[in-house]
Amino acid sequence: MTGIKTTGEKKLMLFSGRAHPGLAGEVAEQLGVELVPTKAFDFANGEIYVRFEESVRGSDAFVIQSHTAPINKWIMEQLIMVDALKRASAKRITVIMPFYGYARQDKKHKGREPISARLVADLLKTAGADRLMAVDLHTDQIQGFFDGPVDHLFALPLLTEYVGARVDRDRLTVVSPDAGRVRVADRWCDRLGAPLAIVHKRRDPDVANQVSVHEVVGEVEGRTCVLVDDMIDTAGTICAAAEALFANGAAEVLVAATHGVLSGPAVDRLKNSRISEVVLTNTLPLEPQANIDKVTVLSIAPMLGRAVREVFDDGSVTSLFEG
Amino acid sequence: MTGIKTTGEKKLMLFSGRAHPGLAGEVAEQLGVELVPTKAFDFANGEIYVRFEESVRGSDAFVIQSHTAPINKWIMEQLIMVDALKRASAKRITVIMPFYGYARQDKKHKGREPISARLVADLLKTAGADRLMAVDLHTDQIQGFFDGPVDHLFALPLLTEYVGARVDRDRLTVVSPDAGRVRVADRWCDRLGAPLAIVHKRRDPDVANQVSVHEVVGEVEGRTCVLVDDMIDTAGTICAAAEALFANGAAEVLVAATHGVLSGPAVDRLKNSRISEVVLTNTLPLEPQANIDKVTVLSIAPMLGRAVREVFDDGSVTSLFEG
Amino acid sequence: MTGIKTTGEKKLMLFSGRAHPGLAGEVAEQLGVELVPTKAFDFANGEIYVRFEESVRGSDAFVIQSHTAPINKWIMEQLIMVDALKRASAKRITVIMPFYGYARQDKKHKGREPISARLVADLLKTAGADRLMAVDLHTDQIQGFFDGPVDHLFALPLLTEYVGARVDRDRLTVVSPDAGRVRVADRWCDRLGAPLAIVHKRRDPDVANQVSVHEVVGEVEGRTCVLVDDMIDTAGTICAAAEALFANGAAEVLVAATHGVLSGPAVDRLKNSRISEVVLTNTLPLEPQANIDKVTVLSIAPMLGRAVREVFDDGSVTSLFEG
Amino acid sequence: MTGIKTTGEKKLMLFSGRAHPGLAGEVAEQLGVELVPTKAFDFANGEIYVRFEESVRGSDAFVIQSHTAPINKWIMEQLIMVDALKRASAKRITVIMPFYGYARQDKKHKGREPISARLVADLLKTAGADRLMAVDLHTDQIQGFFDGPVDHLFALPLLTEYVGARVDRDRLTVVSPDAGRVRVADRWCDRLGAPLAIVHKRRDPDVANQVSVHEVVGEVEGRTCVLVDDMIDTAGTICAAAEALFANGAAEVLVAATHGVLSGPAVDRLKNSRISEVVLTNTLPLEPQANIDKVTVLSIAPMLGRAVREVFDDGSVTSLFEG
Amino acid sequence: MTGIKTTGEKKLMLFSGRAHPGLAGEVAEQLGVELVPTKAFDFANGEIYVRFEESVRGSDAFVIQSHTAPINKWIMEQLIMVDALKRASAKRITVIMPFYGYARQDKKHKGREPISARLVADLLKTAGADRLMAVDLHTDQIQGFFDGPVDHLFALPLLTEYVGARVDRDRLTVVSPDAGRVRVADRWCDRLGAPLAIVHKRRDPDVANQVSVHEVVGEVEGRTCVLVDDMIDTAGTICAAAEALFANGAAEVLVAATHGVLSGPAVDRLKNSRISEVVLTNTLPLEPQANIDKVTVLSIAPMLGRAVREVFDDGSVTSLFEG
Amino acid sequence: MTGIKTTGEKKLMLFSGRAHPGLAGEVAEQLGVELVPTKAFDFANGEIYVRFEESVRGSDAFVIQSHTAPINKWIMEQLIMVDALKRASAKRITVIMPFYGYARQDKKHKGREPISARLVADLLKTAGADRLMAVDLHTDQIQGFFDGPVDHLFALPLLTEYVGARVDRDRLTVVSPDAGRVRVADRWCDRLGAPLAIVHKRRDPDVANQVSVHEVVGEVEGRTCVLVDDMIDTAGTICAAAEALFANGAAEVLVAATHGVLSGPAVDRLKNSRISEVVLTNTLPLEPQANIDKVTVLSIAPMLGRAVREVFDDGSVTSLFEG
Repeated sequence: MTGIKTTGEKKLMLFSGRAHPGLAGEVAEQLGVELVPTKAFDFANGEIYVRFEESVRGSDAFVIQSHTAPINKWIMEQLIMVDALKRASAKRITVIMPFYGYARQDKKHKGREPISARLVADLLKTAGADRLMAVDLHTDQIQGFFDGPVDHLFALPLLTEYVGARVDRDRLTVVSPDAGRVRVADRWCDRLGAPLAIVHKRRDPDVANQVSVHEVVGEVEGRTCVLVDDMIDTAGTICAAAEALFANGAAEVLVAATHGVLSGPAVDRLKNSRISEVVLTNTLPLEPQANIDKVTVLSIAPMLGRAVREVFDDGSVTSLFEG
Repeated sequence: MTGIKTTGEKKLMLFSGRAHPGLAGEVAEQLGVELVPTKAFDFANGEIYVRFEESVRGSDAFVIQSHTAPINKWIMEQLIMVDALKRASAKRITVIMPFYGYARQDKKHKGREPISARLVADLLKTAGADRLMAVDLHTDQIQGFFDGPVDHLFALPLLTEYVGARVDRDRLTVVSPDAGRVRVADRWCDRLGAPLAIVHKRRDPDVANQVSVHEVVGEVEGRTCVLVDDMIDTAGTICAAAEALFANGAAEVLVAATHGVLSGPAVDRLKNSRISEVVLTNTLPLEPQANIDKVTVLSIAPMLGRAVREVFDDGSVTSLFEG
Repeated sequence: MTGIKTTGEKKLMLFSGRAHPGLAGEVAEQLGVELVPTKAFDFANGEIYVRFEESVRGSDAFVIQSHTAPINKWIMEQLIMVDALKRASAKRITVIMPFYGYARQDKKHKGREPISARLVADLLKTAGADRLMAVDLHTDQIQGFFDGPVDHLFALPLLTEYVGARVDRDRLTVVSPDAGRVRVADRWCDRLGAPLAIVHKRRDPDVANQVSVHEVVGEVEGRTCVLVDDMIDTAGTICAAAEALFANGAAEVLVAATHGVLSGPAVDRLKNSRISEVVLTNTLPLEPQANIDKVTVLSIAPMLGRAVREVFDDGSVTSLFEG
Repeated sequence: MTGIKTTGEKKLMLFSGRAHPGLAGEVAEQLGVELVPTKAFDFANGEIYVRFEESVRGSDAFVIQSHTAPINKWIMEQLIMVDALKRASAKRITVIMPFYGYARQDKKHKGREPISARLVADLLKTAGADRLMAVDLHTDQIQGFFDGPVDHLFALPLLTEYVGARVDRDRLTVVSPDAGRVRVADRWCDRLGAPLAIVHKRRDPDVANQVSVHEVVGEVEGRTCVLVDDMIDTAGTICAAAEALFANGAAEVLVAATHGVLSGPAVDRLKNSRISEVVLTNTLPLEPQANIDKVTVLSIAPMLGRAVREVFDDGSVTSLFEG
Repeated sequence: MTGIKTTGEKKLMLFSGRAHPGLAGEVAEQLGVELVPTKAFDFANGEIYVRFEESVRGSDAFVIQSHTAPINKWIMEQLIMVDALKRASAKRITVIMPFYGYARQDKKHKGREPISARLVADLLKTAGADRLMAVDLHTDQIQGFFDGPVDHLFALPLLTEYVGARVDRDRLTVVSPDAGRVRVADRWCDRLGAPLAIVHKRRDPDVANQVSVHEVVGEVEGRTCVLVDDMIDTAGTICAAAEALFANGAAEVLVAATHGVLSGPAVDRLKNSRISEVVLTNTLPLEPQANIDKVTVLSIAPMLGRAVREVFDDGSVTSLFEG
Repeated sequence: MTGIKTTGEKKLMLFSGRAHPGLAGEVAEQLGVELVPTKAFDFANGEIYVRFEESVRGSDAFVIQSHTAPINKWIMEQLIMVDALKRASAKRITVIMPFYGYARQDKKHKGREPISARLVADLLKTAGADRLMAVDLHTDQIQGFFDGPVDHLFALPLLTEYVGARVDRDRLTVVSPDAGRVRVADRWCDRLGAPLAIVHKRRDPDVANQVSVHEVVGEVEGRTCVLVDDMIDTAGTICAAAEALFANGAAEVLVAATHGVLSGPAVDRLKNSRISEVVLTNTLPLEPQANIDKVTVLSIAPMLGRAVREVFDDGSVTSLFEG
């Protein structure tokens, strides 16, 4: 005979960068696998070294890395891991970014700016990524930045279930902290059957010279307001929005967001604000100091685990969000 | 000697597909050039034939085509023109899409949908396009769908100048017809110093079974409302929004949009509505029946002409929108 | 353990665009599958929407679309379907074009023309096609336009078997309607053991000013002539050729071609001609008015079905045409 | 200031591989340039070394190589030259192939064959070629194998002018030596106003078992026949065709072809045939033994020189063949 | 149901070019398969024809070709085989180059040189290669020239085991024939626990005008020296190095190298030298005249066979060289 | 007329990332230009923002960034700058990396490692780089990792001129600190006419268990030794090599290297060593604590400036290192 025939097999392998080992561990547990043992360290000058300590040939590889600070380092580590997998003959490489770095730079606000979110997609493709998986992209259009399949997961069911159980839904108003993020709030309204309000920042027409005010569009007086967004970074916008809501008579203000970036003054601002609860997921690791009473963290790992399993089994990721 | 040296030259050439010759002619006039004579017709089975009747070798070619109905035909014609230019040695090919077809399909709303706006960018790149120029993309992120320079032009100055002069600005409220389009309205507010309102479609909480109502978020009573969007297609959303505004006490409703798609029932709906004026640009050709009194069409040609000239001269397109 | 191992599976799924549902249905039946339920419609401005209503993840997808009128629309629909499959994680995408649109534009006849047949191959590749399947390409070289496998099927056995049984083979002459299409006729000669003739259009040497005459090269007097070509479009060439054959004494003229494009005046011309029978396959849908007595349509579906099955089973498409 | 501005310049540079220095020298002379001094030799194991002895930075480089025997070596040399130019910052690289190697393998005749003509185009692109220039491609479709501009030159004017002056045109018949090459003959007919004949090889219907005969289709008795083709390789087909013509009463037989490949027994066959003259161009170098009386060689260099100049000057190559 | 499901299979198929059938045969035997029957010959003008005589659809194809003289021909043959496999739907194509042609041209020594080793990697990729397998690349960096997996095999265990058993290891010194190849010698030192010496060619400081001398750096007096390199081409360097070693008092000199290129004067030089044994592998075919007593050839086939099997079985090639 | 013709111009523009402004400033001064005003900062979560404050359309852009710590950040910044230039229509983008990050990861030492130096080249290409410029690549083969022109500059003339003037050349020996870096030392020998020695680390044959010793191969007793390498990172190897030289009787030890990475303990080690002088260039910024007496820094800016000018003027970079 002129060949050798065997039955095809496929093998799921899960890899983690060093950015957020806790989440990767939870996902592995969820899947019932060990993370592939990986040697990774920094050389003295900061160059990253990565090597997998088991054969990955022919594997269906999933590489999880949260793009937390120092963000450029972790992106580069993920690129290097993908390069090593490609050269070591992994069969298919899925990049999992629970938080997609540079997602906010998804367009040119002015001439001569980069579109870094597209750049990140291109860099991953170049390194060897066959598909992406991410949670709550800053805008849905980012899916179109990658030339291949993107599994886009939503924390909405997780967050709305929690918040819906936590508040008196008859008194609930969903609030977008800014005119550009109304779409997220709209989905919350839809899911919780609540009315919408918007905090809209605009130049005060009564004062000269560009002083801006936070105008509340919609009814919030006496309401329990949940301010929703995809991420909380420095918490500046969200705290100012909360103030505007209280100034307009809101009874209580909660905050819900998928990604707790919480950079710089964020934790202090939240702590010192009149916001009663901040609900986040663990797509990003939280600094210990963020571990304050009013912060609630829901785990995204079960959803990631189920999605990985569907991808590996040629099932349906879409089905996870239906019905 | 081992070579021949000469001074480099560059040559701007403007080409037009058959979709919207009027606009192409205006742009040519603006630039002070003739459109390159082009033979274009359909074979009996609908295949398109294109040939340029002058040498285009070494040219800086600009190919204008509005993606109007039959939209797939005109996109294909533009692709074929670009292919012919590439094979005929044009030096650089800029695709001008005053209206970018399939721009609304810029993300997957559900699983197993295409992202056709990205596909269009890829098809143009494959055919040979080096850069794109477009007016008021449906979302800014579409710039990131193309791997190369995109000159994004804005009709905002043109439209706001007209509307600003036309209304009593103290009584003006800018209204987004839908929660997903607030960003456009926000820019209008900024430019005209007017407050914002939103027409928000949601399930009526008082009625079972998914009946949705148009809720107006923000103050419109007694106001002159300008409903703004990037395009008006069937005019269903915009007319329903206008109704909601009147129901909430609006004194007058105008509509302003860059792209007058005006498909199917659009003209009838606008004609029969209480909307007092519809302001559009000519990025798309208007059917003769759209030529009704309340429709005002502003020409985008001067802006396109200036932008082409800046591109050709290595000037700055950004500068056209500054100051 | 550090991974999950399972046996690999593969799954054939058959998709159809809206151009020629009859043929797609026949192929599905031949394969014993249902077409994958697909939602496809046109938006008011002509943009196409497509969504598959079942998970296609990991599938070996075959997407059938005949490039009939309106041809640009159906090509675009196929591109959009391929994009959606790519983004929905189909494992391999085979584009089936029973008739390959723009196949006649396979070269530059003059400077500054496109090579649209190459463009179509590139567009499909860009959208995500891994392989092509087509019937009787206008020229064999088109296979080389695609950077990947092309399964090229031949209607020759089907057509020659039918015609061979229908005529007195001792009196049969195979005729090429034009000097550029002799290769097809040559294959018929080979298969049916018949002599060759050519209808050659050239300038009449006896008349000034470019008047062309149809010269018959070869013996046709008293013969049963079968005019063969890959396609019949407007039927102008074929009817003129038939006239020339009768003028040179032909006893009977049949016409055989794989693709019945039959645009514009084609049906009338054939009806009014002295051609006794026109034998076609159903690679393209026939308009109802083409349903005339002298037109015989043979189904290409069994061959397509067998070829799809060989591709799916890693069998041999070549073997279908051997022996 | 933030930059340095200077006038752009462009510089034509002409490079030659070692396959056919005579032709390259003629083209250089035609252009009034020296060939760029190039060091090229074979290492002991046959690997080729190439280095240019002058800076080529920013040049408009034209690299001429005829694909003569040993053909794989000369193709590889041209690829290596292009790679060196790319890495040395030539601005634009035009590959000139007076004879395009592997052009006959432009399709799959059977399953599991390569399409080597497409492969050659892809290899050149990969090495860094921006455009191709070739004379009389075996089939016009090969232009579509390259993703970029192809300047396709025709020896037809040169050959027909010579032959037209050499024979009594009233007695002239143009003959295709084979059913697959009629298109070339057709162009000769058109240009010289002569009738067409075809030598058609088919199975002898009177003899079992595949013996083929050369059937002459068309009138040749008493005529001066010119057998035309794009190339003469072993001269087997052309000499058999000539015999068939004499057997059918031809008065005289000439042969005209662009490319004198003349491999193996070709020269002996032509010498021993009754063919009175063989007209070729010098796209390929002729072996000294091919230097026989009946072989006439016309120089293609003036045409190549003019085409290079048009390309460099952003003129029109198409115009060289008009009027 | 909407699809057909079957178990996936994979099929190893081994193909050989015509350069070194002996080695390919040994590898096939090692694997227990037949080489796939392949028709390959040269046309009269040197163009190569290849066709596989069995279906290769869906196969895991391994294509072995040694880049021996005429090297450009055999590289082109391998490219053509890969193109044919790609177009015939092989699932994965691994190119096996026991000796990687042009590997020494892995950098620019001077301006305006090619980097032919990168070019070869790119050409193979373009033709359709998914992965490479090679033995002892001239420099390890060449792995990085290919954008995909490269299985790099080492003859070191084979060669050192043989030489280690053949000499008195206490008296052994490993010698690099040249300052640029010390890394190979270093690996030998490591493996055999032997000291290092270097033959260093430099300008004689005592003589004017660039006369170079072979200086021995390190102790060799009375030692058994093994000169090691990746390849022996013309044997000029190696024989001069041996002379220098004897001049410095070496007791005996052996030579070991993976690739026996042995071009031009190599065999004579080795025969006439005082080198006592030359140990090579059969990555390249040896000319019959190289079959002299002092040349020992070790077979690389078992290692290639094991590596192919590991690749096919998704095992580990790395593991072959561990422990 | 159908177009507008103007003379072509080109404009050099120089951009700098934030990694090593001192060097960029020196290069700008050398060229007589200002650096293009650029707004660059980090967002709170570490994402980088870049915007050019002048039009860059049509420019010949040079983007300088030294890959110093934090290295991943500065690589990402350079990628983002290139993306912004590409999208802002720079005509040609040259990436200047005085020190090329990850250059040492230029091959796989073991299975399942990345080849990060190739990855960096690919990332830059993907972002939009047309060409690279670098000083003293760790290995010359890295040039071949980029698919395009690489201008490779050498600090050798600068360093050898300085060291040659500083020492008694009759007593000078050039020493490679390690068997793998002999090639650099070889070039020094050649340039300064000095003999070579090598410090070779190997297992001590007299001691069990892998203890390695630094063996000096070549004569160093009483000599002035200059240890040369492309870079000094932690200075561990170089200081151990210096110790071995003193242990073998060296009279004096200097160190010379192009890139002063000087990570971690490097400065302390050098300070505490008996090395008398360390000669570096400023391809990387030196930490203030590295500013010790025995460290001499030569400026690479004049060479970079001249090279940029040659590139812009289509001159010759090769010529800078000739004669």
